[in-house]
Amino acid sequence: MSEEIVTLAHGGGGIASRRLLREHLLPRLDSEALRPLGDSALVDVPPGGIALTTDSYVIQPWRFPGGDIGKLAVCGTVNDLAVMGARPLYLTLGLILEEGLPLADLDAVIASVAETAREAGIEVVAGDTKVVGRGDADCLYLNTSGIGVFDYAHVRLPGPRAGDRLLVTGALGDHGLAVMAARERLPLKSELSSDCAPLSGLVEAMRGAGRVTWMRDCTRGGLASAANELAEDFHLGVHLFEDELVVHDAAAAVAELLGLDILHVANEGVILTAVAEEDAGRVLAAARRHPYGGEASLVGALTEAHPRRVVLETAVGGERIVDMLTGEQLPRIC
Amino acid sequence: MSEEIVTLAHGGGGIASRRLLREHLLPRLDSEALRPLGDSALVDVPPGGIALTTDSYVIQPWRFPGGDIGKLAVCGTVNDLAVMGARPLYLTLGLILEEGLPLADLDAVIASVAETAREAGIEVVAGDTKVVGRGDADCLYLNTSGIGVFDYAHVRLPGPRAGDRLLVTGALGDHGLAVMAARERLPLKSELSSDCAPLSGLVEAMRGAGRVTWMRDCTRGGLASAANELAEDFHLGVHLFEDELVVHDAAAAVAELLGLDILHVANEGVILTAVAEEDAGRVLAAARRHPYGGEASLVGALTEAHPRRVVLETAVGGERIVDMLTGEQLPRIC
Repeated sequence: MSEEIVTLAHGGGGIASRRLLREHLLPRLDSEALRPLGDSALVDVPPGGIALTTDSYVIQPWRFPGGDIGKLAVCGTVNDLAVMGARPLYLTLGLILEEGLPLADLDAVIASVAETAREAGIEVVAGDTKVVGRGDADCLYLNTSGIGVFDYAHVRLPGPRAGDRLLVTGALGDHGLAVMAARERLPLKSELSSDCAPLSGLVEAMRGAGRVTWMRDCTRGGLASAANELAEDFHLGVHLFEDELVVHDAAAAVAELLGLDILHVANEGVILTAVAEEDAGRVLAAARRHPYGGEASLVGALTEAHPRRVVLETAVGGERIVDMLTGEQLPRIC
Repeated sequence: MSEEIVTLAHGGGGIASRRLLREHLLPRLDSEALRPLGDSALVDVPPGGIALTTDSYVIQPWRFPGGDIGKLAVCGTVNDLAVMGARPLYLTLGLILEEGLPLADLDAVIASVAETAREAGIEVVAGDTKVVGRGDADCLYLNTSGIGVFDYAHVRLPGPRAGDRLLVTGALGDHGLAVMAARERLPLKSELSSDCAPLSGLVEAMRGAGRVTWMRDCTRGGLASAANELAEDFHLGVHLFEDELVVHDAAAAVAELLGLDILHVANEGVILTAVAEEDAGRVLAAARRHPYGGEASLVGALTEAHPRRVVLETAVGGERIVDMLTGEQLPRIC
């Protein structure tokens, strides 16, 4: 039997499209809201406003150590909602498929979407599938848009203040470097795996333990971008201690090999968090008890001393300015 | 001066990404919710639930007679919300750009997005930009996800019943055939232009005039797919009169040239509407008074006589079954 593949007809809006939906997508993405296949899903939200986010995913290779594009897309969107203080609730899924993609690969990606969504407690309620000809995309691209809601346990964050401590929830650089190593088929001495994870549970655990004032996930542009955005958006200085940053040996080795600054490398399971000083210890302890926060660390503080600047105190006692990424280090890392 | 183009750095999450946002996207997509550039937008919605939809757009060529991919993306999402009875309110915009795309082309698309969104009264509140290497996409792909809300003037549709009259809001096939003609550079004797339009105002006008029970926009798969979905989803027969369908001469000519059944061709400004029989005349009159409904026509009725079937009474008095599209007629039409 020849391998079943995605054809242009699967994107045509006719019988083949309906069959793809009924046989490959709906059984895995079990959702009451999705099943009517209307033009839009009708869903309820509690009062209090919503958080809304969108991301496209073009990662190459689409399957990598620690995950695949389906898991990545759900995690990315869940985390963008969670760091705003919202409870991730509904997800949309847009697929752009290249003609010739094996249906088994699509099935695997959709299974990842479904499994990650279940873990994060988010429901895929609307979707769309387009097919482009061979050579007009690279296997498949995903878009996920997400809605998060606010309720008694999920309120908006108050915003960072000078004096807040900064917490990073995990080791840096694993995602970007694992993807890069897989793409370049680098020989690795030790395991290097993406940190890709849905962090809504970790965020809840931290917020339950103390006053979290601001969060951002350290994706494209890495910790350096998140920290610079924090400094710029709130006219505060970010002071970091290099000694406190957690970097796995394998990641450090690949970063050195590729000549990359690990502070600029994308993560998919790491959040930069500002915490009221008096609560920092409790929030750190809560993070460390969570499966996705075992390597959390207090890495610095917010200060009025050098507004809009990110300063890293190095291991040898010097200081350096941490800039945002100026070029493109690692294309198609997410 | 060399032409400015999109580079991989524009998708990297660093300084070039921020500059693309601040110089090319934000000034055109003026939005309070977008400006903080947080991980998610925070917006309010009235109580009563929401409608949620997503679509990716891969149309080729991305600029066509009557519109471009930016206008198309906003219209498609606005219309998917409007046909559910919702008021389109918030939009997200995901861009996948091919390295080398002229920034002037991106600017033109974003200007279209902004102009169409303004007309439709929908606000772009969240966005994302990814860049893939040359040859990994075809110029640019868009994703728009939309949120519609329900309020005193926008309530959910009650659902179709046997006896309801069927109304089609415009001429058939113009979008798909205009795009196809542009792609194939067909010599045309007369003007053929996409019908691409945001139809929320037309929907309001019709609903204000009488009891509209069900709507679907006739995009991929054309009127045939929309009618078959109606028949299948509600176990009703759809009876259409060929004589009442409006088709422009230019569209008919191109369809004949390409050997296409116009009932299967995609529209982007046409809605199939079920209306309570006693209100059909008033709803038709209201549609015709609207700029996007001037060629509206009552084309048939819902019946219990042949459930789950779409039957077309032909101009010469015969009958034929109208099936859903079985293959892919017109790839990348949206």
